[in-house]
Amino acid sequence: MAATPVWSVDPRTGKRREQVGHEATAREVDEAVRAAHATRGALADRTVRAAFLRAAADLLDGAAAEVTGAADAETALGAPRLTGELGRTTGQLRAFADAVDEGAYLDIRIDHADASLTPPRPELRRYKVPLGVVAVYAASNFPLAFSVPGGDTASALAAGCPVVVKAHPDHPATSALCGALLRRAAVAAGLPADVVAVVHGFDAGLELVRHPLVTAAGFTGSIRGGRALFDAAAARPVPIPFHGELGSLNPVVVTPAAAAERAEEIGGGLAGSVTLGVGQFCVKPGLVLVPAGADGDRLTEALAKALGETGPGVLLDHRMRDAFIAGVRERAALPGVDAPVTPGPGGEHTVTPGFLTVPAARLTAPGPHELLLEECFGPVTVLVRYEDQGEATALLDRLPGNLSATLHLSTAETEGGAAEGAAGAAELVERVTALAGRVVVNGWPTGVAVAPAQHHGGPYPAATSHSTSVGGTAIERWLRPVAYQSVPDALLPAELREANPLGLPRRVTGG
Amino acid sequence: MAATPVWSVDPRTGKRREQVGHEATAREVDEAVRAAHATRGALADRTVRAAFLRAAADLLDGAAAEVTGAADAETALGAPRLTGELGRTTGQLRAFADAVDEGAYLDIRIDHADASLTPPRPELRRYKVPLGVVAVYAASNFPLAFSVPGGDTASALAAGCPVVVKAHPDHPATSALCGALLRRAAVAAGLPADVVAVVHGFDAGLELVRHPLVTAAGFTGSIRGGRALFDAAAARPVPIPFHGELGSLNPVVVTPAAAAERAEEIGGGLAGSVTLGVGQFCVKPGLVLVPAGADGDRLTEALAKALGETGPGVLLDHRMRDAFIAGVRERAALPGVDAPVTPGPGGEHTVTPGFLTVPAARLTAPGPHELLLEECFGPVTVLVRYEDQGEATALLDRLPGNLSATLHLSTAETEGGAAEGAAGAAELVERVTALAGRVVVNGWPTGVAVAPAQHHGGPYPAATSHSTSVGGTAIERWLRPVAYQSVPDALLPAELREANPLGLPRRVTGG
Repeated sequence: MAATPVWSVDPRTGKRREQVGHEATAREVDEAVRAAHATRGALADRTVRAAFLRAAADLLDGAAAEVTGAADAETALGAPRLTGELGRTTGQLRAFADAVDEGAYLDIRIDHADASLTPPRPELRRYKVPLGVVAVYAASNFPLAFSVPGGDTASALAAGCPVVVKAHPDHPATSALCGALLRRAAVAAGLPADVVAVVHGFDAGLELVRHPLVTAAGFTGSIRGGRALFDAAAARPVPIPFHGELGSLNPVVVTPAAAAERAEEIGGGLAGSVTLGVGQFCVKPGLVLVPAGADGDRLTEALAKALGETGPGVLLDHRMRDAFIAGVRERAALPGVDAPVTPGPGGEHTVTPGFLTVPAARLTAPGPHELLLEECFGPVTVLVRYEDQGEATALLDRLPGNLSATLHLSTAETEGGAAEGAAGAAELVERVTALAGRVVVNGWPTGVAVAPAQHHGGPYPAATSHSTSVGGTAIERWLRPVAYQSVPDALLPAELREANPLGLPRRVTGG
Repeated sequence: MAATPVWSVDPRTGKRREQVGHEATAREVDEAVRAAHATRGALADRTVRAAFLRAAADLLDGAAAEVTGAADAETALGAPRLTGELGRTTGQLRAFADAVDEGAYLDIRIDHADASLTPPRPELRRYKVPLGVVAVYAASNFPLAFSVPGGDTASALAAGCPVVVKAHPDHPATSALCGALLRRAAVAAGLPADVVAVVHGFDAGLELVRHPLVTAAGFTGSIRGGRALFDAAAARPVPIPFHGELGSLNPVVVTPAAAAERAEEIGGGLAGSVTLGVGQFCVKPGLVLVPAGADGDRLTEALAKALGETGPGVLLDHRMRDAFIAGVRERAALPGVDAPVTPGPGGEHTVTPGFLTVPAARLTAPGPHELLLEECFGPVTVLVRYEDQGEATALLDRLPGNLSATLHLSTAETEGGAAEGAAGAAELVERVTALAGRVVVNGWPTGVAVAPAQHHGGPYPAATSHSTSVGGTAIERWLRPVAYQSVPDALLPAELREANPLGLPRRVTGG
């Protein structure tokens, strides 16, 4: 049987640009995994690993024009956005190199032997070791930062895990280019090229998660695709952790006082957040609770004006365009749903942004309107008009898990203490904490900062685990602890020796 | 339909002692979970939680005679062992109270806003919040330390999660008693009694893991039971983390030099470790690599002598006794397997310890002898006689995941550097690190110290996740991170406020 070719497609025209290799067969996936597995020993050297991550960042920056050009041709995301995304990507690689150097991620704990305890305590020294080959599933909407050279790959390599990436069909040429750059960086740092490999094809993705030598997976994508892979990971003879980011509504609550104070500003800001990247962000605000009444009307009008002035955009592929148009139509057809600015087809290859409105009462009980509580990928959001706090609360209690939850509050509400509405605002913060991995006040959820304290995850379906895919702690996903009991100093890993020759941070008990 | 009664049974006679309530119906499980769920707000207070854990420890210690008496009557583990186990259990509760007070488990990270970065970084403050109701599945072999008042319960309550325990049928009376003490301690500390509840019955256990309000599970038990529950947890509409400890061979490697130096000591020590608790420890050394030749023969003889002198013991229940006898028979019948001291039935209700031997060559390729690589619960171990390092290595490479791996080394081998055999010993440490969650040198794996640096887990099937069920980091299983972005100080949880009013440890970046 002939190999299935993989095509790079221009979403602006729907036309094939070039063939990028072919879909990997089961045998090719096996070869890639085995080759990656064989590099574990080489990757064990932390100094080399850090140098590799920095070399990768340098090579990607050096090829910026080529990389962003390839990505734009396949995704239509535009040069400014892709230049920013490349900076985020190489910044991430360097941040993980720093984390490897620092070594706090090893979470070293040492308990000295203590014969005075009952029972006596033996010497215990614990740190974390890499799991082994990690499978990474690239995202459609971030051809760089959540794809071949993205956060999953960077954090897994930082942990000491070889990586096999399943490329996303929306940007195979970018994936191949970035894969080649990463492999070149590995060799430049003295590592085998096979520490990272790229495979294409849907079936290859399933083969990968089922491969006995694959020890964990990272995924960013849809609920359907992610859940299928999660299920495959859990059904293995030896189950593996599957860290998937699947879908999120990213609810926003605008309080009556905030609407009274800043209706136009909030409406305009919302339009910007909803249309950023043509609405193709996993943290796009997809459901906005806006008070009924005049202030909420002003917000709605400001949103309508801003969205009406936003031109059409190109989605990542035609399947997504079809799904967006159909998804909006289905939602707009529900009783009581209005579309002040109707989102839908623009030109032959574009879509126009818009929004829907619905009274909260339609959503506070089970029924067909629950469709509005499912993510609709693309430049659309749903404004839910609520009559009172009780209605808003009832709706929040019905939401699934989210990556983010955002509150727009008035000045007084943010002041705390005895200020008007402050108690209610504090209660809102607590309520949405139960719903999300990140809580934003008076801002927008789009723009997930790469920072040590970041958390990008949340209750299912936002994520399939309680880990983060962005930020300093993302590395924790690819490690497991090991404790050494009464192991003579000379036989311990250097990281755990009493003299601390590598100068690593550690927590020590007793002794 | 009448409720199915639950009986406490005396394993020394096989006779029913008393009825302990009945198996929980689906409705009763639902009620227990809902009642537990309703206590989350009360449990959110860290000070009260710590007081509760200490009150529970005090009440258990105060009722020591009653608790260990109940446990002995149901498990035949004996007063000395159960007294030690109770001390471990209350020590664990107090250690987690200390961890709650200290607050390091909140893993607070703060990134101050930085407008000079590209893109500008917003203020980010991250900590961990409790997941919600945790289901705990009690172990047969630890009626206290891994059951109702055990480590899973203690760490989940410490994290702020209400607990519903599914009691083990081997000790329902002990479970009911401990459950009542924990509930009394909750009330004494000002909490609702429903922060912890106990249910009985196999079906109740399945209902529990499938309940929509249950957010995570902890399990200690068999591969079959654990995997079924793991699968149910993964198959839920909203999957939940399942932290299960399922089974472990706990391999031991005795080097030729160690056998030459300490054959008798190692053989005697092994006998003690294999028969501790009548071989019913999850870390019982179940597979021991012993060199062929005279030194290994001396070790074998010392083991035979010690085991031959060990009297019969009572297993936890008759089903286990049947499984032990059948499991040993099946293994002993394999070609090439000898039984220098035949383990098997003692009296009507007891078993006698023993061991099997097999040449390593029988185990280095797939075949019926793979049965010897499966855990056999009870006082039996398998000595694998190996000809050379290559054969030992080949066997190690075929082992599944383990809770522990133990090395017995000679004095020179432990010295490191250029000492004879030290390089090989270091390589062995590295090799068994890949196999296990804890590596022990010149000791025995039984006796898992409760200590901050402990790790009790390991690659599947030792554990279904990369977490630990013993030690300071066990609390991490029941928490998820949340990041607060640009949330005004007055609306932040007290744990994250800039002035650090609770004096918690934190990592701060920038600002």
